Amino acid sequence: MLLSGGSGKRLWPLSNDIRSKQFLSVLPDGQGGFESMVQRVYRQLRYEFPQERVVIATGEAQREQIEAQLGSSVSIVCEPARRDTFPAIALSCTYIADICQGDADDVILVLPVDVYAEQHYFSVVHRMQKAVANQKADLVLMGITPTEASSRFGYMVPRLHHDDHIVIDRFVEKPNTVDAERLIAEGACWNGGVFAFRLGYLMDIVREQIGSYSYKEMLGRYADLQRISFDYAVVEKAQSVAMIPYDGMWRDLGTWDMLVGEIGSRGLGSQVQHETEETIVVNELSVPVVAVGTSRLIIAASADGILVSDLQKSAQVKPLVDTLTDAPRRMQHAWGTSTVVERKTTGDRVHHEVRIVRVEQGSTLEIAAEEQFSNTLLFLEGSGSVTYGESVQSITLGASITLSGKEVAQIQADSCVLIVESLVDQNLL
Amino acid sequence: MLLSGGSGKRLWPLSNDIRSKQFLSVLPDGQGGFESMVQRVYRQLRYEFPQERVVIATGEAQREQIEAQLGSSVSIVCEPARRDTFPAIALSCTYIADICQGDADDVILVLPVDVYAEQHYFSVVHRMQKAVANQKADLVLMGITPTEASSRFGYMVPRLHHDDHIVIDRFVEKPNTVDAERLIAEGACWNGGVFAFRLGYLMDIVREQIGSYSYKEMLGRYADLQRISFDYAVVEKAQSVAMIPYDGMWRDLGTWDMLVGEIGSRGLGSQVQHETEETIVVNELSVPVVAVGTSRLIIAASADGILVSDLQKSAQVKPLVDTLTDAPRRMQHAWGTSTVVERKTTGDRVHHEVRIVRVEQGSTLEIAAEEQFSNTLLFLEGSGSVTYGESVQSITLGASITLSGKEVAQIQADSCVLIVESLVDQNLL
Repeated sequence: MLLSGGSGKRLWPLSNDIRSKQFLSVLPDGQGGFESMVQRVYRQLRYEFPQERVVIATGEAQREQIEAQLGSSVSIVCEPARRDTFPAIALSCTYIADICQGDADDVILVLPVDVYAEQHYFSVVHRMQKAVANQKADLVLMGITPTEASSRFGYMVPRLHHDDHIVIDRFVEKPNTVDAERLIAEGACWNGGVFAFRLGYLMDIVREQIGSYSYKEMLGRYADLQRISFDYAVVEKAQSVAMIPYDGMWRDLGTWDMLVGEIGSRGLGSQVQHETEETIVVNELSVPVVAVGTSRLIIAASADGILVSDLQKSAQVKPLVDTLTDAPRRMQHAWGTSTVVERKTTGDRVHHEVRIVRVEQGSTLEIAAEEQFSNTLLFLEGSGSVTYGESVQSITLGASITLSGKEVAQIQADSCVLIVESLVDQNLL
Repeated sequence: MLLSGGSGKRLWPLSNDIRSKQFLSVLPDGQGGFESMVQRVYRQLRYEFPQERVVIATGEAQREQIEAQLGSSVSIVCEPARRDTFPAIALSCTYIADICQGDADDVILVLPVDVYAEQHYFSVVHRMQKAVANQKADLVLMGITPTEASSRFGYMVPRLHHDDHIVIDRFVEKPNTVDAERLIAEGACWNGGVFAFRLGYLMDIVREQIGSYSYKEMLGRYADLQRISFDYAVVEKAQSVAMIPYDGMWRDLGTWDMLVGEIGSRGLGSQVQHETEETIVVNELSVPVVAVGTSRLIIAASADGILVSDLQKSAQVKPLVDTLTDAPRRMQHAWGTSTVVERKTTGDRVHHEVRIVRVEQGSTLEIAAEEQFSNTLLFLEGSGSVTYGESVQSITLGASITLSGKEVAQIQADSCVLIVESLVDQNLL
């Protein structure tokens, strides 16, 4: 079970309210291309668990992007509202028990989707599965070997060391650095947010804390559930809890300074650098970024804006861009991408908007006229068919279709189709 | 007579092969708005010479921008080819003599259009005019009081000081700094490229060096004329030559570091700055630039690209961007602006191009279908009429027109009209 939460602007302008960091294709995939955090974690996970069912717990906003990046080999459980990790895990476990007819003895492994770790991390996950299956403990967590006396993490203090697991004595949430040093001396590990348990174990807790419901009923009740973390609702109350330590690379790529270390020194996209030092350019635009004589900078450009930040200060980006109120311009969908290239608004009201829409080969896009807008599609590139009204026609480059009222056009892309879509508010006339 | 030559990329991405630096609206106009170098020089010139005829010598590429920025109160003399300053001045003087029926005793004042100086500079120009009118010398130049022993300028060495002019002894072109110091000690001034002479004086030289021709004949012969500077062809051979010194602000705003000093510390366009020092943002895009923790940087963004440069090193921008071969995306015309937002090319061949076209209130734009392209215009905003084929119709927002073959649409903008124009090569099908 992968937990894919969060959204936001810590990696603005590449991430926005719609595109979360885990979907950005910025990590070298080792074959000359790039992959996203989601794709990397899923690839690493599949290497260790080729056959097992993978469920992703997420929100509706991320469904299309997950489908676009992982295809249909994963089950997506959409949370009807944003609650915390306990309701999310409870909903997905209900899905597995109710819809997938999971057995009470099936072992559930819960991982965050945005972890950046080496392959060995997933073999530790495998050992966690075995520890639960062999009834070493009800609940097994991954312990991350600390690299510093950080006050940003929860600590797990060992009681008893076995060959294949360590029984946990207690949890200490975000201690100060002095206490953290003492805990590390005791052999404590960070809580990495990776959990292993039997499905039946968790369903008992769900029955006790939420009630006994079908998946469908749970979806209906979801918005009313209490916001509570899995650590608080389950982990800290568990009687039989163990950890298996992981001692390797483990990073949060949630800020630009952390991410650029992995992107590599050549950056991404069209760029020219001259007499620069430690300057990373990540450019999604088709026009170039030229950097001259800069040092220790991240320069990131997308349809949503341009960031130029000192590498050390990139953590300050989020509160700044949270003040920007423009709706996102670059969107990723299951069928392709859409980029706003011209927009006029008054407050929330859009007067007109022009988008470049890319439908990937083999995909289908259905475009409906938005109420009170005229919507014109003009085909720039590609081949396929368009279903509109009663007729099915081949795509003609340079030709256009105007939708209004409740009209719908369905575009079937035989090769990648590029469209310019122009929306104009008809009530402004 | 204003000389408006040059083009190029020293102020890329704001300037490009089409937009020269003198047309960028980046200088505070003292009333909360911005003006270009051309507009500033023309305003300053008109303050001193409210009635006199102004002729601008330039190339065809700049005609539309001059009309857009200065209106119809100036006469534009278009050089049919790029020659040097002597042919340009000779052509404009022929225009004044032949077309405007200028008198041989009329005083011609020649100024570069990209000078950045205070108003007093233009009162010195006025004194030059009087010196010629009062026959103090055949040729009067402006002497710029040197601020350093620069080897970038020509020096004019004085022989005799009068109340209202200084007789020049000799010219020294770009001396080394040791010689420059010696010349400054002698009272030498820089040659500022401002000339005053009687029309008859110059026409005698034109007859001697080029021949006696009408303006029309001169236009026809222009491309065959020798490339030679006014300094070399006229100034250095003159027998009776004087200067009037100007001791004030005088700058070349041809590189970013010089320009940003005048733009002011708040920069231009949408931006957020946090913990920055000496960071100037000039942003023509509608999405924001966010700068965090940067120091001594120029950040400039336009539809053509993004520049991030150390202020001290901005002179190195030109050779770098000269290697970029993309055609300009942002264009200024007499009727408005045009910005390419999507383009696909193979070499020089355009497959498709999408432009946002802005026709200013009161202007008329004629759009012809380009050969082998279908060209669709869709109206996003504004009001006016469109003449197409046999019909004249009011502009309907959301409606589109497709031109092909040799069809032409004429758009008359009653208020500012915004259009998305999509060109698709029909031979690719």
